[in-house]
Amino acid sequence: MSSLDALDLARDLIRRPSVTPADAGAMDVLQRALEDLGFACRRMRFGEIENLYARRGTARPNLCFAGHTDVVPAGDAAAWSSGPFDAAVSDEVLIGRGAVDMKGAIAAFTAAVAQVLAEGEPTGSLSFLITGDEEGVALDGTKKVVEALAVEGEVIDHCIVGEPTSAARLGDMIKIGRRGSVNSWITVEGKQGHVAYPQRAANPIPVLVEILAKLQARVLDDGYEGFQPSNFEITTIDVANTATNVIPREAKARVNVRFNPAHKGAELQAWFEETAQAVAEGFEGKVEVKTLISGEAFLTRRGDFTDVVAEAIRETTGEEPDLSTTGGTSDARFIRSLCPVVEFGLVGTTMHAVDEQVPVAEIRGLQAAYARIIARYFERFGEASR
Amino acid sequence: MSSLDALDLARDLIRRPSVTPADAGAMDVLQRALEDLGFACRRMRFGEIENLYARRGTARPNLCFAGHTDVVPAGDAAAWSSGPFDAAVSDEVLIGRGAVDMKGAIAAFTAAVAQVLAEGEPTGSLSFLITGDEEGVALDGTKKVVEALAVEGEVIDHCIVGEPTSAARLGDMIKIGRRGSVNSWITVEGKQGHVAYPQRAANPIPVLVEILAKLQARVLDDGYEGFQPSNFEITTIDVANTATNVIPREAKARVNVRFNPAHKGAELQAWFEETAQAVAEGFEGKVEVKTLISGEAFLTRRGDFTDVVAEAIRETTGEEPDLSTTGGTSDARFIRSLCPVVEFGLVGTTMHAVDEQVPVAEIRGLQAAYARIIARYFERFGEASR
Ligand SMILES: [Zn+2]
Ligand SMILES: [Zn+2]
Repeated sequence: MSSLDALDLARDLIRRPSVTPADAGAMDVLQRALEDLGFACRRMRFGEIENLYARRGTARPNLCFAGHTDVVPAGDAAAWSSGPFDAAVSDEVLIGRGAVDMKGAIAAFTAAVAQVLAEGEPTGSLSFLITGDEEGVALDGTKKVVEALAVEGEVIDHCIVGEPTSAARLGDMIKIGRRGSVNSWITVEGKQGHVAYPQRAANPIPVLVEILAKLQARVLDDGYEGFQPSNFEITTIDVANTATNVIPREAKARVNVRFNPAHKGAELQAWFEETAQAVAEGFEGKVEVKTLISGEAFLTRRGDFTDVVAEAIRETTGEEPDLSTTGGTSDARFIRSLCPVVEFGLVGTTMHAVDEQVPVAEIRGLQAAYARIIARYFERFGEASR
Repeated sequence: MSSLDALDLARDLIRRPSVTPADAGAMDVLQRALEDLGFACRRMRFGEIENLYARRGTARPNLCFAGHTDVVPAGDAAAWSSGPFDAAVSDEVLIGRGAVDMKGAIAAFTAAVAQVLAEGEPTGSLSFLITGDEEGVALDGTKKVVEALAVEGEVIDHCIVGEPTSAARLGDMIKIGRRGSVNSWITVEGKQGHVAYPQRAANPIPVLVEILAKLQARVLDDGYEGFQPSNFEITTIDVANTATNVIPREAKARVNVRFNPAHKGAELQAWFEETAQAVAEGFEGKVEVKTLISGEAFLTRRGDFTDVVAEAIRETTGEEPDLSTTGGTSDARFIRSLCPVVEFGLVGTTMHAVDEQVPVAEIRGLQAAYARIIARYFERFGEASR
């Protein structure tokens, strides 16, 4: 078994400019490292997206690490203190796009596996579920891989997602759930006319304003076990009428709800539709509501699995992790249909920013925490403990 | 004194494509006709706009005809049944841009003056106040001419504006007042952020929605002597945020009120501002309200002058004119500061449309009505009657 350095692997990955949907050879770099460690690697290509499912061993339990090799664009490359894909190390800090989100974490987990294997065979399987489409539309990434694995009957018992969940110090926060997200597009169509003759027109704007006022007046909930209150935002309203003396024909708005498990996407969709129809009652125009549910809320309940992760973090970093459910969505929303999921990774403050960076010591710290999680996991869930 | 045919003059005027702010020689055509009738003509040029003040006689009372030679664009010229500036007459109908709004009326009044002068000298003065900027921003037109005449001490006793006020048949409606109009631009500036972290952002949209909901909930009045109820319309809302996961920084709306004499522009301006500030109380962003008062409401009370006009219409057309205050604004809003104003002109149904048109008989009918108004006016107000 080859020795494997987390920093070297992180730098190799960053040097491949895998801006979604490009792969730029990043998946090959990871696959070679995993093959060296004895993983059976399967490429799963959907559309133009490279995905990888790699497994070492056939026994249960199967502990999976999930993540993504794609990164967001560099933005203003000239504003970086070194090239965004140079993976420069300066003052023991690694700089580059993907350093924390999340090539650094992929490298740390891979190195952690090598470290654990050097101590002996785990009493179960290890696997990687890696996509090249997490930062984009995410249609041909983890969602499709999870669907394909489910059809095949592939069993994953528990999953760790390597998103940068730490807030200020490595290990101070992990995520054990995520809120759901739903977007809805509300369009009111009336009848155009001259503002001096409103009786000959049907202004769609007052109807839209009343729908939105009704929606925003509702308190969705006061929170839910471990979750923030659900939150409603109007993200845009557009009419684009430049004429001061014209009543426009159409008015559109888009709303978003981030919701805890007190709600379901379908229930919120029905709320949008019923509110809109009730306000439009008697209006001579028409109202259309189109809703897209990006993901339902989910929660991995505190128990043996979350205990394993939290204990390992405590032992290696000295931090007492906050088991959080805040923040945006991640691919964990797809994996939760297969097994319990916990997200744990680097400090996320520079993610998606210019000069995305991570101290080398933090990568090594994450490797140590991951290695302890793997060891503790098989102690608790492995065959030996059954 | 030359003979003068209303149709010929209307066609001459239409053949000059005086789309605001272009004059295209239209004012010269009119000026020559007036000079032939003994008018002293003064060009009053403001900015790029041609204006004409012409007066015949020095005695009081001074009865003024006001109007505009400019026209709105032809629109889709290919959709016209004849060229929009050809002034074709087909089946005794004159077709062309400006036929009803309002070159036809200018020609009819000029011919009416010629007709009256053929009968004898009026016991007072006749004048024309004609602008080339009514359909545009109207900044360098009647407004400036009125201001200049006021400074000079020029006295106009009564004014007839030749806008196309007739609804279905010539003479069925005149306007004795107009509602005021005010536009206001409301801008709410907040703080951009990610929709998953609303506590780090300040969404301007809910504030704007609440301001608009409060404004549109108010019933301004139930009408005013001879006026419709005042009316509030939101004419646009714009955010232009394309990202579903972003809380935008800024949201804008524009509102319009058409108001009767129960309101003043300044009072409505204060209402917009106070409502916006009250809603924004405690909001960490800021709200800006910019208001433009296009014109105050005005009313020419029923009395001798409106009686003269209405009686002349009854005698020549057989119609009993409705003394209305409906519709959009006109230059009458500027002239009212000088004297009582009544608006009376052709049937307006095709104004601003493709194939703007007027039956030749209607131009002749308007000439007859105007001639009777002039005659009756000097009988009632002229020196002989004092
Ligand atoms: Zn990520
Ligand atoms: Zn006009």
